[in-house]
Amino acid sequence: MSVTTYTVTGMTCGHCVSSVKEEVGEVPGVTGVEVDLESGRVEVTGDSPDDAAVRAAIEEAGYAVAG
Amino acid sequence: MSVTTYTVTGMTCGHCVSSVKEEVGEVPGVTGVEVDLESGRVEVTGDSPDDAAVRAAIEEAGYAVAG
Repeated sequence: MSVTTYTVTGMTCGHCVSSVKEEVGEVPGVTGVEVDLESGRVEVTGDSPDDAAVRAAIEEAGYAVAG
Repeated sequence: MSVTTYTVTGMTCGHCVSSVKEEVGEVPGVTGVEVDLESGRVEVTGDSPDDAAVRAAIEEAGYAVAG
């Protein structure tokens, strides 16, 4: 089990949060996604999901990963 | 055919626009909904849809009608 935190920019409302959760949740190995809209903090829990795939999913949802 | 314009506050992104379009589009008599995110302008076209029903739909979507 791993927990990785990403900082995502561009999320403005609850719909944005839902989009990110949905896309990241589809990445193989991901078991949980927590998002804090205010800070842009996205905490991804899972069985070592591929970092590049998680980042791609966030971008797929329409947002940018900082750093 | 009537066109009524509302000013809606609280929409922050394209998802918000979609929510408003969807809810207002379900009001009986509404045939078209145009939304400008920047200004919050929502233009409702239809066969004289009920004004209170349109306002209720906007609030149902989670936003406020100004005025």
